[in-house]
Amino acid sequence: MEQVKVLLEDHEIPKQWYNIVADLPTPMKPPLHPGTGQQVTPDDLAAIFPMNIIEQEASARRWIDIPDEVLQKYLLWRPSPLYRAYNFEKLLNCPVKIYYKNEGVSPAGSHKPNAAIPMAYYNKVAGTKRIVTETGAGQWGSALSMATQMFGLGCRVYMVKISYEQKPYRRMMMNTWGAECIPSPSNLTQAGRNVLAEHPDSPGSLGIAISEAIEEAVTTKGSRYALGSVLNHVLLYQTIIGLEAQKQMKKIGVYPDVVMGCCGGGSNFAGIALPYVCDKIHGKKVKLVGAEPSSCPSLTKGPFAYDFGDLAKTTPLLPMYTLGHDYIPAPIHAGGLRYHGMAPIVSHLVREKFIEARAYDQLKTFDAGVKWARTEGFIPAPETNHVLAAVVDEAMRAREEGKEKVILFNWSGHGLVDLSAYDAYLSGKLQAYELPDEEIARALRSIKDFPKP
Amino acid sequence: MEQVKVLLEDHEIPKQWYNIVADLPTPMKPPLHPGTGQQVTPDDLAAIFPMNIIEQEASARRWIDIPDEVLQKYLLWRPSPLYRAYNFEKLLNCPVKIYYKNEGVSPAGSHKPNAAIPMAYYNKVAGTKRIVTETGAGQWGSALSMATQMFGLGCRVYMVKISYEQKPYRRMMMNTWGAECIPSPSNLTQAGRNVLAEHPDSPGSLGIAISEAIEEAVTTKGSRYALGSVLNHVLLYQTIIGLEAQKQMKKIGVYPDVVMGCCGGGSNFAGIALPYVCDKIHGKKVKLVGAEPSSCPSLTKGPFAYDFGDLAKTTPLLPMYTLGHDYIPAPIHAGGLRYHGMAPIVSHLVREKFIEARAYDQLKTFDAGVKWARTEGFIPAPETNHVLAAVVDEAMRAREEGKEKVILFNWSGHGLVDLSAYDAYLSGKLQAYELPDEEIARALRSIKDFPKP
Repeated sequence: MEQVKVLLEDHEIPKQWYNIVADLPTPMKPPLHPGTGQQVTPDDLAAIFPMNIIEQEASARRWIDIPDEVLQKYLLWRPSPLYRAYNFEKLLNCPVKIYYKNEGVSPAGSHKPNAAIPMAYYNKVAGTKRIVTETGAGQWGSALSMATQMFGLGCRVYMVKISYEQKPYRRMMMNTWGAECIPSPSNLTQAGRNVLAEHPDSPGSLGIAISEAIEEAVTTKGSRYALGSVLNHVLLYQTIIGLEAQKQMKKIGVYPDVVMGCCGGGSNFAGIALPYVCDKIHGKKVKLVGAEPSSCPSLTKGPFAYDFGDLAKTTPLLPMYTLGHDYIPAPIHAGGLRYHGMAPIVSHLVREKFIEARAYDQLKTFDAGVKWARTEGFIPAPETNHVLAAVVDEAMRAREEGKEKVILFNWSGHGLVDLSAYDAYLSGKLQAYELPDEEIARALRSIKDFPKP
Repeated sequence: MEQVKVLLEDHEIPKQWYNIVADLPTPMKPPLHPGTGQQVTPDDLAAIFPMNIIEQEASARRWIDIPDEVLQKYLLWRPSPLYRAYNFEKLLNCPVKIYYKNEGVSPAGSHKPNAAIPMAYYNKVAGTKRIVTETGAGQWGSALSMATQMFGLGCRVYMVKISYEQKPYRRMMMNTWGAECIPSPSNLTQAGRNVLAEHPDSPGSLGIAISEAIEEAVTTKGSRYALGSVLNHVLLYQTIIGLEAQKQMKKIGVYPDVVMGCCGGGSNFAGIALPYVCDKIHGKKVKLVGAEPSSCPSLTKGPFAYDFGDLAKTTPLLPMYTLGHDYIPAPIHAGGLRYHGMAPIVSHLVREKFIEARAYDQLKTFDAGVKWARTEGFIPAPETNHVLAAVVDEAMRAREEGKEKVILFNWSGHGLVDLSAYDAYLSGKLQAYELPDEEIARALRSIKDFPKP
């Protein structure tokens, strides 16, 4: 009998998050106020986020204590198990050992509650009564619905309309956890009404939904906004994944050669990667690889530039790899990866060559996902299938190179609420999307006049 | 920080299943051959099941070794965590400590793989090439699809047609794991064609689907049948739940006053209860409570009688609490509890007063389920909501009696593939079903001429 899982007891859960900003060899470019072109100040953000979260967003402290109230909720599913994927290894028949963190064990089925729980908690402490947010496929919206319910806050989620209609189960999860879910664009906000006036049948986009959520948050007393990826504090909260993985790998005396995750806004990848980037900064040999969709290849095809986080240009200008804030990604099933930009921290580390990026089309990712389900049992989320494609790729490279490798990756969530995507794949209805270069050039015109980082 | 979970490491997994037949103070009535009225022999079953499983079905050995190959697959999610439900306790505000086994952590999201994995394994060893089975809401069909894929067997699942149409996600799970899923009644079997000839629009029933699956299994070379509940060997495999729970409760030095589970065919309830019934037989004070739907109240309103397990009268006559083999339960959302009979072992223990039973209507169960989701996070399956209603009930009794109680129950699965049921409940569309006494009398006419146990 071979040991499949490495567990941590409740009392072994990490008590601090890791803030990589403290260890960066070169400083990051600051976010800019789009009106003044100056660095954003905490006051600029005070209408959007509570001050305790703004402080963390700007913090350079290496370790940040996780409040007891947050730890107590984390324990509902954390520490998450570290698995060895023996069955998948056997199928691949390559000289690799494959370990993964199973973030699908959370009540929402993904890594998103790692950030939703502290956000709800800090808002509660700061006196917020309700949180407004947006969601694409629904992973973030459902996670925040659960978290706000646990801390007694109200919650409204603007969900991209096409997902609202095509993926009713995540809307039902939000309702079950007591939140309101509104299809976006809606007539509840000026941003939504503007879009509807021009395009009454608009299917919506993440950029529009962000604009609606921010508008409502800043214009409604007692309300604040929450973002589920991209920003520094979100990545900070997700580092619990990598910190646990390091403890678990140490228990079995193994250190990974490669650490991988899928990349949309960057939060689940950063969650497992940043503690290992810290090791790398301090001289350890480890390769970090982010896997993104070829239909939305910000890291592999976008420039590093200042750009807005949303379509309505509500956010500060962020220094990141981007395809342009008005880029609408193809309707692939990995809704969580359909974002035009990339977290500034991840972008900085790619630019500084600490992290590599690769892009995979969705057919290749579902091929890997079905192989995974049929060997390891757990059905992966469409987003997670991207890192699985990268793992297959890395295993094949190991065979070609004749090298033994230890791979560690973040299995970011299960696909039980995304089964219609598998149905489409298995019945031959899925398409591969590769972004043509001229389309990228077009998309980037929207940012040509912005300051250069 | 309070400890929420009690874990077992991989090497602590129980290595044997517990067979309560060895410990029964009074012997069970045997299953009968409907033609001869005599006790069923192993040969009578040889066309349906492989001989290694038939031997276990009839075994009186107390402990049965779990094969290494089965243990290795169990480790993909077992040992399952034992939880303390602090948040739900706080909400109820009663003098109870509530512990639960989270069986929702399996890849299929329920306890069903505990039985599917050994069944696939034993069939593989016996030379079976493919397994045919039936499924109601789809929990069993999806679990067996995964298990057969893992051991390289083919799998066909007859799924009750109305569930096939209303719950497409579980059909998609089966396909993702490589199995065929056929809506029943179908024109692939004589049993199905007979039903369709009379009722072309038949929505199907579990009884019809069982008949179709057995017919195909016995008439197709290399094929065998598998049943996901009711029979002795199925309950045997599920005892791993209770055996793990006993190890975990021992670790924290707590012994339960009450052990509970929901009851459909009886397998998940038996899984947690039988090791504790063993304690009770040997003098320990512990109460066992099964929770069934008031729309299908075999234990609380049916007689103890010989009856068929299926509508087409294909199975042996089983001694059990039953509402009659032609009883079609109301279309409640807990599809896994819509079965006219009850496992003979559970029935025997209820008759001998080792186990109590209670019935709950579905409105009460969803009320408990939503409260659970909003405090503990995990969204329960509609079946699981029945035991939650019983837990609430037991907690209220403790408060009325002014007694402190430790409750342990089996959280049999998550409801992420059943969210439309929550949607119906939250929008006020769910109905309560109570079975009228005259309906029971009518249903029982179908068994009036059978031998009496």
